[in-house]
Amino acid sequence: MKKIPVPTVNRLSIYLKCFNELLDSNILNVSSSEIAKIIGLNSAQVRKDLAYFGKFGRRGFGYNVSYLKENITKILGTHKNWNVAIIGAGNLGRALTMYKGFLNRGFSIVACFDNDPAKIGWEIDGINIYSIEEIEKIIKKEKIEIAIITTPSSSLSEIINILKKTNIKGILNFAGKHILNEGKIMIRNVDLALELEQLTFLISNKNKIQTEEKGGKNQDNL
Amino acid sequence: MKKIPVPTVNRLSIYLKCFNELLDSNILNVSSSEIAKIIGLNSAQVRKDLAYFGKFGRRGFGYNVSYLKENITKILGTHKNWNVAIIGAGNLGRALTMYKGFLNRGFSIVACFDNDPAKIGWEIDGINIYSIEEIEKIIKKEKIEIAIITTPSSSLSEIINILKKTNIKGILNFAGKHILNEGKIMIRNVDLALELEQLTFLISNKNKIQTEEKGGKNQDNL
Repeated sequence: MKKIPVPTVNRLSIYLKCFNELLDSNILNVSSSEIAKIIGLNSAQVRKDLAYFGKFGRRGFGYNVSYLKENITKILGTHKNWNVAIIGAGNLGRALTMYKGFLNRGFSIVACFDNDPAKIGWEIDGINIYSIEEIEKIIKKEKIEIAIITTPSSSLSEIINILKKTNIKGILNFAGKHILNEGKIMIRNVDLALELEQLTFLISNKNKIQTEEKGGKNQDNL
Repeated sequence: MKKIPVPTVNRLSIYLKCFNELLDSNILNVSSSEIAKIIGLNSAQVRKDLAYFGKFGRRGFGYNVSYLKENITKILGTHKNWNVAIIGAGNLGRALTMYKGFLNRGFSIVACFDNDPAKIGWEIDGINIYSIEEIEKIIKKEKIEIAIITTPSSSLSEIINILKKTNIKGILNFAGKHILNEGKIMIRNVDLALELEQLTFLISNKNKIQTEEKGGKNQDNL
């Protein structure tokens, strides 16, 4: 398999959502230009992206949607279910614990952790809140592979040090401080203010952004 | 100004955070290799990124951090304050309304909207919850330019139709359905499950991702 450029990786989930919607509408075959229209790219970029994942398309027949869906699911690693822990039961942690959009995408929130004695022992929507001290034990017991960190940034290094002792494979970091991959643990940083900054950049520079799909009508708003 | 590639745009906020941290530590000048080390790119990529924004660096002196910060803030459009509305006062909407990380990045949440009579008229952390029917009036009155949508995806098209009648310039869309820019309104989609999918992709394909900084030690985990 060829190395995949980051912007293509970023679009895989968008393709997957598109294919799920097509299947919901009983559309079994689709052309690159139809995909392009739905997600706002041009068709050359779509063909280029999908070509990274093998020859899915047949000239004149278009792409088989189920096959594309299955392959992208495997590539994204979401053909299996992942058990997830939320670390930090503040407002954001609680909202993510109750978020209904994770389960049907292959992610089960199975535990929540906090250091506030007033929260420990309670539950959010049926998910137990454990003490930070129990992280190692519960991660092992519940076979948790992903942690979502929603603590203040001041607690981040302490949490990372605890997680390094576990079999956690990836961290989604909402703590507001940008961190790099930690040994074998892959880290993805999510910064909510950054999302707004990227939006104001789009607003302020509508005409200055080089979209990859030169000549495409719609800007790739990823 | 040259057209800016999307991955560079995505990194601007990361640079900005880096420069803020340097200034907090009273570091006034910085080399591309120092920046590279902090944010996990190689220095050639850093020089290439920053070159899009003019000649900020002087050979042998490095970059002036304040000047860089000021320029990137202007480019991102966050040198001014933006008034923001949250549409949807569910768990996520409430968490975002109470989120403390927006204000010091130039974003003030000034109003919240919902269609649930049990919520309308109440407030979250001092922010009023108005009826969806008041969107046009309040957006005008409060000079709101950005809307964060946290409603279910089924309400999305109704909300967009209302927002099209206002002077809203940008939408951050958490509603779970990927939508394209709507007329003059710029849209940035945030999908929380997508963030987890991108993380499991990283976990499952550690060695297959082409980072832009060839030869760089750290993978760009953006």
